[in-house]
Amino acid sequence: MNAPHELTSAVRRPAPESLHKALSERFGDRVSRAQAVRDQHGRDESPFEVAPPDAVVFCESTADVAAAVELAAQHDVPVIPFGVGSSLEGHLLAVQGGISLDLGRMNEVLRINPEDLTVTVQPGVTRKQLNEAVKHLGLFFPIDPGADATLGGMAATRASGTNAVRYGTMRENVLALEVVTASGDVIRTGTRAKKSSAGYDLTRLMVGSEGTLGVITEVTLKLYPLPEAISAAICHFPTVAAAVDTTIEMIQLGVPIARVELLDANAVRAVNKHEKLSLRETPMLLMEFHGSDSGVKEQAAVVQGLAHEHGGEDFEWATTPEERTRLWTARHRAYFAGMAARPGCRTVTTDACVPISRLAEAIGESVREADDSGLSYYIVGHVGDGNYHVAYLIDPKDPTQWETAERLNLQLVRRALRLEGTCTGEHGVGLHKQGFLVEETGEASVEMMRTLKRALDPKNILNPGKIFTL
Amino acid sequence: MNAPHELTSAVRRPAPESLHKALSERFGDRVSRAQAVRDQHGRDESPFEVAPPDAVVFCESTADVAAAVELAAQHDVPVIPFGVGSSLEGHLLAVQGGISLDLGRMNEVLRINPEDLTVTVQPGVTRKQLNEAVKHLGLFFPIDPGADATLGGMAATRASGTNAVRYGTMRENVLALEVVTASGDVIRTGTRAKKSSAGYDLTRLMVGSEGTLGVITEVTLKLYPLPEAISAAICHFPTVAAAVDTTIEMIQLGVPIARVELLDANAVRAVNKHEKLSLRETPMLLMEFHGSDSGVKEQAAVVQGLAHEHGGEDFEWATTPEERTRLWTARHRAYFAGMAARPGCRTVTTDACVPISRLAEAIGESVREADDSGLSYYIVGHVGDGNYHVAYLIDPKDPTQWETAERLNLQLVRRALRLEGTCTGEHGVGLHKQGFLVEETGEASVEMMRTLKRALDPKNILNPGKIFTL
Repeated sequence: MNAPHELTSAVRRPAPESLHKALSERFGDRVSRAQAVRDQHGRDESPFEVAPPDAVVFCESTADVAAAVELAAQHDVPVIPFGVGSSLEGHLLAVQGGISLDLGRMNEVLRINPEDLTVTVQPGVTRKQLNEAVKHLGLFFPIDPGADATLGGMAATRASGTNAVRYGTMRENVLALEVVTASGDVIRTGTRAKKSSAGYDLTRLMVGSEGTLGVITEVTLKLYPLPEAISAAICHFPTVAAAVDTTIEMIQLGVPIARVELLDANAVRAVNKHEKLSLRETPMLLMEFHGSDSGVKEQAAVVQGLAHEHGGEDFEWATTPEERTRLWTARHRAYFAGMAARPGCRTVTTDACVPISRLAEAIGESVREADDSGLSYYIVGHVGDGNYHVAYLIDPKDPTQWETAERLNLQLVRRALRLEGTCTGEHGVGLHKQGFLVEETGEASVEMMRTLKRALDPKNILNPGKIFTL
Repeated sequence: MNAPHELTSAVRRPAPESLHKALSERFGDRVSRAQAVRDQHGRDESPFEVAPPDAVVFCESTADVAAAVELAAQHDVPVIPFGVGSSLEGHLLAVQGGISLDLGRMNEVLRINPEDLTVTVQPGVTRKQLNEAVKHLGLFFPIDPGADATLGGMAATRASGTNAVRYGTMRENVLALEVVTASGDVIRTGTRAKKSSAGYDLTRLMVGSEGTLGVITEVTLKLYPLPEAISAAICHFPTVAAAVDTTIEMIQLGVPIARVELLDANAVRAVNKHEKLSLRETPMLLMEFHGSDSGVKEQAAVVQGLAHEHGGEDFEWATTPEERTRLWTARHRAYFAGMAARPGCRTVTTDACVPISRLAEAIGESVREADDSGLSYYIVGHVGDGNYHVAYLIDPKDPTQWETAERLNLQLVRRALRLEGTCTGEHGVGLHKQGFLVEETGEASVEMMRTLKRALDPKNILNPGKIFTL
């Protein structure tokens, strides 16, 4: 596996003064070389050291993005799109230098089509902002990574979250994109039609391409009617295995559950402390059911029955919207809760995803290894998808802890691959998983990806050094 | 728009004797140059004239496919994958000559994983064969183009059908592929995990690429548990508009209907005659509800209420599996029923798909234009997706009828594009829609597709002349 520090030592292509001058002429005070601004744009939520870009351009329109990319291309200098910086995989680090394109000001919800359940947004709109904008229409957008990420960033990493088990990921929920290509051209990748067989699926080629094939400047998404009935429940289990087995069975039965999240006792403990909750500190499932009144009751009854068979207790219901929001907010903040539990620590997060029948084996062995290691850790997971995050909390100054975490990560990923899974369910490859990607998909497939990259970005200026090196 | 006869006059690259010799050595009597075999592989269900390949290789394994592609590449000769020949867009015509790869013998269901709701098949397995193979496990595969197409062909055209409104298309239901590349290498594009952020989405790049980026040699698909309750209903309406308005409202309300198909009076008439049914010959919706017993009743009650408001009559229920099968078989055979209604005719089929709110306008104006034209026509549609097929029945020897049908087609597609839709919801671009593709997505997007094609297939041997010309 490539360690991040090896990647960051890749050849730098610093912006020459002529580029700074051209950017300054085009963007005036919307381009910054201040160290604080550069540092802020050269880090993310990953445990890696800051790798600042040479300058940051605050883009306000597609034309701005196109102009910035064109200037960067003329000078052979990288460009790195930036949303809110919530990547967990080092996507935003300027490992080869270059210009960060801050798209945070492109934050308009451009067009809501409630009659078609679609919306078009600028890339800097965040998931919470979008949901605020469509709530009064009785609609919602389900994809919810922990952070309040931007829709552009979420599309770029093929993000998912807690609702994916029912509503799919960004792969299924992006209808069309506007993209600035490596040459500064602006293309559209689809229409608002629900389905299409019109040529290559450029939308899904861009979704998950981590900024390496184009800069996303507009996103057209599916929306969903708020369900007639929503109810959230907590179920405590004697062991992680019991919670996982319950999950496997509900998925195999085809229960259309909207959310089913695992928290191990460590995660519950951290969340309790950080969010001032008083959840019992045992492994638990946090669930949500969507549907008609009777449909929700039916689903819950089936799942409660399965849970009982595995020693799960009676559901505790969150009946009001406020209670539900409190619980889900706590879940979304688990990452920060985990870090707060050990001040000064960093988190090495895993993101494997396996076929549902393999989940018990995948998580069970990872728990044993983590326990044996002596490292602090916790587990959360979108277990209905077979996706689980073991987060190792390490002292960044202790190389032994780094190494132990990386060894556990490697073992966990190799196990997931052996169980026919993937090294990353939703975070992306970024800097850290490049070796895993090759193990997962084979050198020939990665070479096909490189061929696509070379074809669409011959100068290698779009977020170079991410996913793979050329 | 490019007329098919212009495309078929593209430069031919006939197989030299040295290639025939090499194929003969490698494949023995599994390669054929017999005219009848070549003719059979140079046509499909489109109205275009036969364009036979120079030879047909009957492949029995991935190694066979790789060997054939490698030999073709050495001789700079096209290869065209062939399933059952049910394309409606000329995908199988050897417009530049070359070798047809018949994958019909690669028809094994390789691995069923009921515990994960996945299955892996060879590309020559048909949708009916697959459903037979998984029925005893209480599972089904929903994607159902009218023909009993192969899964390889369905993946290659991003097919859908009557269940897509609830279960999605091949885009959403292919988990992973094995693909033979233009150089004869074999790659895998994914795992059996339900979701992944591991690099570029090669699976979806191949799905819908119509044989132009690789030859699909294995398909891993999602399966679904057979619903606890299924009920099918027919509802007659006074007008097509009333049926369409009812559909729009049920989709906007979020009713999770499994199938909702429009047949206009002409389609009902043709189906009655061809299938010996006695449906009342008015516009109708043929619907199916999946879910729990109570869920199905709830859905049906909502839709019946909407239908009544638009003058729809009381539902007629198909309660037994046999009745349901009879109705859906009739729907699937509508294409042949339409042709049988006018012996000797050919069908020019449209395949537009628009956002659901635009469907009434899209279909309404197309009906008026078709009525005014004097051509025979009928309409069927997967209207829950906004996808509708106006099929013009023409005498192939009458150039005026050809021209009229093409004019209506053009008007219909331009209207769909104006309404933010696509020229093809499920049939693909093939030969016939290449001009439409440019109108829909813009020259820059098509140029990006060409760039991808040149990168992955530098000799342009993979089904050349389809989707676009280079």
